[in-house]
Amino acid sequence: VSSRALHAAAFEDPETAQHLSDAARVQAMLDCEVALAEAQAALGIVPQSCLAALRRAARAEEHDLASLGRQATEAGNLAIPLVRSLTQRVAALDPDAARYVHWGATSQDIVDSALALQLRKIGPVILRHLRRCGDAAAGHARTHVDAIMPGRTWLQHAAPITFGLKAAGWLDALARVRVRVAEAFAACAVLQLGGATGTLAALGPRALEVAEAMAARLGLAVPDLPWHAHRDRVADLAGALGVATGTLGKIAHDLALLAQTEVGEVLEAAREGRGGSSTLPHKRNPVAASSIATAALRAPGLVATLLHALPQEHERGIAGWQAEWETLPDLLALGAGAARTLAEALEGLEVRTDRMRENLGATHGMIHAEALAMRLAERIGKAEAHARVEAACRKALRDGTELLEVLRQDPETRLALDPAELERTLAAGPDVGMARTLVERALARWKTSGDAHG
Amino acid sequence: VSSRALHAAAFEDPETAQHLSDAARVQAMLDCEVALAEAQAALGIVPQSCLAALRRAARAEEHDLASLGRQATEAGNLAIPLVRSLTQRVAALDPDAARYVHWGATSQDIVDSALALQLRKIGPVILRHLRRCGDAAAGHARTHVDAIMPGRTWLQHAAPITFGLKAAGWLDALARVRVRVAEAFAACAVLQLGGATGTLAALGPRALEVAEAMAARLGLAVPDLPWHAHRDRVADLAGALGVATGTLGKIAHDLALLAQTEVGEVLEAAREGRGGSSTLPHKRNPVAASSIATAALRAPGLVATLLHALPQEHERGIAGWQAEWETLPDLLALGAGAARTLAEALEGLEVRTDRMRENLGATHGMIHAEALAMRLAERIGKAEAHARVEAACRKALRDGTELLEVLRQDPETRLALDPAELERTLAAGPDVGMARTLVERALARWKTSGDAHG
Amino acid sequence: VSSRALHAAAFEDPETAQHLSDAARVQAMLDCEVALAEAQAALGIVPQSCLAALRRAARAEEHDLASLGRQATEAGNLAIPLVRSLTQRVAALDPDAARYVHWGATSQDIVDSALALQLRKIGPVILRHLRRCGDAAAGHARTHVDAIMPGRTWLQHAAPITFGLKAAGWLDALARVRVRVAEAFAACAVLQLGGATGTLAALGPRALEVAEAMAARLGLAVPDLPWHAHRDRVADLAGALGVATGTLGKIAHDLALLAQTEVGEVLEAAREGRGGSSTLPHKRNPVAASSIATAALRAPGLVATLLHALPQEHERGIAGWQAEWETLPDLLALGAGAARTLAEALEGLEVRTDRMRENLGATHGMIHAEALAMRLAERIGKAEAHARVEAACRKALRDGTELLEVLRQDPETRLALDPAELERTLAAGPDVGMARTLVERALARWKTSGDAHG
Amino acid sequence: VSSRALHAAAFEDPETAQHLSDAARVQAMLDCEVALAEAQAALGIVPQSCLAALRRAARAEEHDLASLGRQATEAGNLAIPLVRSLTQRVAALDPDAARYVHWGATSQDIVDSALALQLRKIGPVILRHLRRCGDAAAGHARTHVDAIMPGRTWLQHAAPITFGLKAAGWLDALARVRVRVAEAFAACAVLQLGGATGTLAALGPRALEVAEAMAARLGLAVPDLPWHAHRDRVADLAGALGVATGTLGKIAHDLALLAQTEVGEVLEAAREGRGGSSTLPHKRNPVAASSIATAALRAPGLVATLLHALPQEHERGIAGWQAEWETLPDLLALGAGAARTLAEALEGLEVRTDRMRENLGATHGMIHAEALAMRLAERIGKAEAHARVEAACRKALRDGTELLEVLRQDPETRLALDPAELERTLAAGPDVGMARTLVERALARWKTSGDAHG
Repeated sequence: VSSRALHAAAFEDPETAQHLSDAARVQAMLDCEVALAEAQAALGIVPQSCLAALRRAARAEEHDLASLGRQATEAGNLAIPLVRSLTQRVAALDPDAARYVHWGATSQDIVDSALALQLRKIGPVILRHLRRCGDAAAGHARTHVDAIMPGRTWLQHAAPITFGLKAAGWLDALARVRVRVAEAFAACAVLQLGGATGTLAALGPRALEVAEAMAARLGLAVPDLPWHAHRDRVADLAGALGVATGTLGKIAHDLALLAQTEVGEVLEAAREGRGGSSTLPHKRNPVAASSIATAALRAPGLVATLLHALPQEHERGIAGWQAEWETLPDLLALGAGAARTLAEALEGLEVRTDRMRENLGATHGMIHAEALAMRLAERIGKAEAHARVEAACRKALRDGTELLEVLRQDPETRLALDPAELERTLAAGPDVGMARTLVERALARWKTSGDAHG
Repeated sequence: VSSRALHAAAFEDPETAQHLSDAARVQAMLDCEVALAEAQAALGIVPQSCLAALRRAARAEEHDLASLGRQATEAGNLAIPLVRSLTQRVAALDPDAARYVHWGATSQDIVDSALALQLRKIGPVILRHLRRCGDAAAGHARTHVDAIMPGRTWLQHAAPITFGLKAAGWLDALARVRVRVAEAFAACAVLQLGGATGTLAALGPRALEVAEAMAARLGLAVPDLPWHAHRDRVADLAGALGVATGTLGKIAHDLALLAQTEVGEVLEAAREGRGGSSTLPHKRNPVAASSIATAALRAPGLVATLLHALPQEHERGIAGWQAEWETLPDLLALGAGAARTLAEALEGLEVRTDRMRENLGATHGMIHAEALAMRLAERIGKAEAHARVEAACRKALRDGTELLEVLRQDPETRLALDPAELERTLAAGPDVGMARTLVERALARWKTSGDAHG
Repeated sequence: VSSRALHAAAFEDPETAQHLSDAARVQAMLDCEVALAEAQAALGIVPQSCLAALRRAARAEEHDLASLGRQATEAGNLAIPLVRSLTQRVAALDPDAARYVHWGATSQDIVDSALALQLRKIGPVILRHLRRCGDAAAGHARTHVDAIMPGRTWLQHAAPITFGLKAAGWLDALARVRVRVAEAFAACAVLQLGGATGTLAALGPRALEVAEAMAARLGLAVPDLPWHAHRDRVADLAGALGVATGTLGKIAHDLALLAQTEVGEVLEAAREGRGGSSTLPHKRNPVAASSIATAALRAPGLVATLLHALPQEHERGIAGWQAEWETLPDLLALGAGAARTLAEALEGLEVRTDRMRENLGATHGMIHAEALAMRLAERIGKAEAHARVEAACRKALRDGTELLEVLRQDPETRLALDPAELERTLAAGPDVGMARTLVERALARWKTSGDAHG
Repeated sequence: VSSRALHAAAFEDPETAQHLSDAARVQAMLDCEVALAEAQAALGIVPQSCLAALRRAARAEEHDLASLGRQATEAGNLAIPLVRSLTQRVAALDPDAARYVHWGATSQDIVDSALALQLRKIGPVILRHLRRCGDAAAGHARTHVDAIMPGRTWLQHAAPITFGLKAAGWLDALARVRVRVAEAFAACAVLQLGGATGTLAALGPRALEVAEAMAARLGLAVPDLPWHAHRDRVADLAGALGVATGTLGKIAHDLALLAQTEVGEVLEAAREGRGGSSTLPHKRNPVAASSIATAALRAPGLVATLLHALPQEHERGIAGWQAEWETLPDLLALGAGAARTLAEALEGLEVRTDRMRENLGATHGMIHAEALAMRLAERIGKAEAHARVEAACRKALRDGTELLEVLRQDPETRLALDPAELERTLAAGPDVGMARTLVERALARWKTSGDAHG
């Protein structure tokens, strides 16, 4: 009954949404109950005979999700009504088997181990989207390695760069956040099994063997200690997702700014039904960039919530754990949706190198001011050269002439700088320094990093 | 497909959830389209004959919500596919009428005016819950006006208070936040009608009359200017809800702390299926307090998001408006759920005045240290009296004797304070100062404020 | 010893910084101690004779601020060492008077009442800056009421507006947030006097009279109840400041986007030493806009902190109150700095109406697409007109011709729309609808609102 | 002039505060200028002769910090006035040398590389404090490995644990966050050198060699690409600090809750001038825990700010980078202060194992309910056993008798459970399951992890 579906459907990553669905959540919890019983049966703690009925009853579609939801918050968590429902279904099949359902575990064991299972599935999805983002950025870096464009600082033209370098910067950041996200997901793939207060007392003398066997079945690691009240792994994943989403947001803002009517250096791929307007027939709105920017705007508040959730009271708190239940899924959905959307946006991006070159000329040659100042500085020192060129820029702006012309006619510049050299500097065209080498570095690293992090 | 339903169902306020549902949202948008057309028909801008088909087609159940959701983010907002769907349905009934659907309006006009409609319905619900909270707090303040208990600062016993005073403090805060929430909702009950960029150009020369007539039909006020890119009203409502939820959270934390096993001064009402544990048969968890505290932990991040959403670019931005769409409903749901839950919790609260009095005695009389120090201060000055009593407290703690006994035997205290007076001070019992008057003040204000704010 | 001074000095509002300084804070606390003693002396609770020494000792410069700082956190709050220091200084002047220092009050009474005093001084400063912002925006609205420019949505040209309307939108929002900020400051001008746990027990039987007299001396209102553990007033002020700063940030983002090299429609006032670059001699960076945008980026996190601080435990908590001490001053400084900076930026703004008009023509006439579609819609219905113009826009873009030309040659358009009418529509120039009336409304409201809120 | 000093002095970590001081910041920037010139001199780009004057002028005490602060924000960043001031001082010593100051670098190169230098110093300080925290927690885990106490969930007694296990849980989390903080600091120890827009164009053809040589001098790594507009490393450090501070906050909340008057299981070390009250002579407030909890309450908002700062426009944005300047230092100060304070608090902690055992008995034996239910479950199944014991608990609570007694007299329990076995279960005392093994695991891991992360 939330208005979420209406607004988020399209930009949600469908695969992630699936893994976060109510049914998937309940199934993950049921899988944990089965793994627990199987582990205990293997160790002779519960009878093997109880497994058949349990396995049959442990299917999400056997349980009334809406009713579970209603009971869940009354009870305080979802495991309580689910265990009840599961026990009833098992009892209907095999009354004896029902005695061993949820044997020795506490609610949080099931809720958290299920979360770990869900994360183990969602992690690779997000990493795959991030890889696509990186691959697409790498493609642009390679293709446009020499495409000169204005570098912009403070939203003003500064000195020339290449679109290849800009894309390499995106790639470089994507490579880093991808590694961090991978590590954070990996750290969360741990079993939770502690019983009521983390001693595993109700699990009997072979409790730690139960944990090992259960974890093995679920494909999770066994942590040194139960982590019921220590949620740093979850908060760290939130942080990694926050940094990743913010990085995606940085790229999206670049795209939207480059797509401005007056700039026009990139355009999102046109597509039926996308980016139109209900009143403005000519619009081609950067909806992909917008959706990613929106995710980047929403993620930090959710990360902050998960950090605020860390101080959980004693062995299980009253608010922190509970606050995770909706906040982490929201954050995962935003991160996955943003990653998938950026992958598509970069893959379909229309890059207009002609506009880039054209825009470079929009400032009477001032985009080359730094290069000229550096040449001059070699003769008259940095501070004076800077002042000279600054004055020339002001004059060029005022008179609407080219900076070069102003400098050509500036007697002091002519004293300092051999006119021929001045011409040579200008004829050489925009100086983009090490841009090409930097692009190559980023591409090389991406190749390597890609191999290391699945 | 979100996991929200599972976790939040029970503590969500059902009425608010209803007003926030996908169907309600779409219906509110359709109502705006009808009101627009009716206003234009009344002014002769569109033919009266187009209304019949429009009214019939403008029912949420006529539209495929799931499909709208999928198209919405592709398009960039929900209005685009909804207008398309509406136009098709109108056309099926009356091809001519279809020409005038959404005449002169832009998507945001519909999305925002619909939001205003939803808020106009949700406001009274939340205010009603807050009134119940206040009434229940007032009841406790009245009933327990003389119930002595330990006042606690820094989670330590400080000086005695009454439970009546504590409840009056809750009431006093509830009264304030209720007024603020009422004002913030009222300020949001404004029409949005500006067309593509806020000039109303597409609405023709009588655009402002259209706005007046449309607003009148919807029960909304007409603002001086369209507010498409200026979202302070929304952000201010977010702030008010954040403060209200935090205030509810303060009361909830008090309840949970008072319900601690060792304190035991209040208990949430027992109820079948509530607050149990899957492993611990004896538990009676403060699930209502927990749910409110969780809301208070989650709200600030959402408020921060809505504040971050304020700097929207030019006449319609790329992320800020979009970030509101899920964030504000989440915040409304949390606030409404917390208010309803606290109302119930306070109404059913079990107050154990015997435990309050018992706990008062837990510190060898040190809860009376301030009163004793003040008596002594009258004789020997504040600083010295403080030092004397502090030393006596340390001695009492070390020896496990009563503070009174230590002071009785302290020669310097005896010099300063007439033993008879000392006994009188102690015999008078805990001094709760102005507690009773303060309670009366809070009750009087509540009565008045209740009349003023529906 | 923080790096704050280095970074924030210039854009901090000096007056606000002064009221937030360590000396001002300590002086406000000392003023509260004096007012308390005077009130008690007037009621005969402490001897009149103790006042002279107290008044002399109650000057910030008499106390070692650095040492107070060191002791403060050891002690848990600033009042404890300050009362100690004050008592010592009073004792040196008049040993008898020293007995009555801080009589019956608790630390929080002094800390919070001092905060109320500081806020009473800071409020008018911020409101004055906001008034200047509004006046400057009003000036632009008036001067540029007919200056046509592109309205931009999703960072794309949409339909024409006027710069006057844009400025009126700023003004309209500024007027609203100014009222809210004024109200929130007013609500905080309340005395805190409750003693250890809010009963005023240590203040004796005439405690409430003491509160009245003390508040009168300090120019503060007396609240119904002490508010030590109920901080909604503080949080509400935070919310109002957050909304105001976000609104300033919206305007600042508009300025920075309009000042982009390719857009060039506004420029911040040039000024020696402002907005240059250490390497780029030609830069004129929008440093004022940047500084405001930075404040808007930082404020929401601080507001969220103050909302998280609301659930304070019992009669005085362990973290919430303490978290206010640095967070609220930071927020006040950011809000005041942003308001002052925007006032200056708007007052000195260079508006380039020629560039506005020039940019309007950058899209082959597509900025007029909506107007053309509406004319066409009157003949063939909205949906079809929209589709027709959308197709024409695509063709104009592809061929690099003017939209008008495409429509002129489109046979279906010619069928639907009389060529003469088409020409008339285009000749009429950009249609900015109700822009002028809306500007007048905003100006009228500002005039009124200005009178109501000092 | 901020009120920070007053409030934060004592709990600030003095070493971190020193590294964050204005002087340290300026010195780090000057060190970068020297390293740049030395690198260029070594490569023959600037003359060796310019170094002597530069080195002499590059001392923070040579520059007027207050004046730099005032110019900084006017200019837009601190490097601009500092380079100016440095150039002047160099010129006074050697006019020729002044020509080569800041050769080819941009402001951000100096600001960010200086930040990297500061972080390289602060990292080890925070890690050292975290190590002390871990060592102290390890000490408690070892010493109190068998100290039985109530495990508490939802702020209610649940099942028994040991204080050793609780301390081991703290240790386990501390070990993890320490590794993360170490990694995040390490990743930030990278040079920034990109020139105006990241191409290093102004640094000439050997720019990358300059970067290598400069980084080597500063002890920083050379990143693949300049990171001026990609701030994920900074944001990731923020996240790591946020998680660490939250983890410290969790422990602090545990301490404050355990120190409650009614619980009394731990006490912060008594210390002259610490934790008293201005009115309550008997108070021993948990000021260390409070200060840490305050840091944990403030950190998430700052982390969120740094995440919001990620989407920086193009090659240098208007707000994101700027927002880092005060926010990151605040976060570092809070994290360092909290870590140092917790180290002291844990080292001096008074642990009262007698009160722990005493509190265990506060619930009529219900703390053993789970163990009894599990024994019973082995006979009659989990669900029924749970219901039986739940009923017995309710009866025990109602009648004020011991749970054991109720069960002894419950005919159905007697049928199911051999009375002798019932007695044996109870005689065995509280069952803390695997607590001892878990403690040993945590201690072993800490030993190992300590060796790996300096």
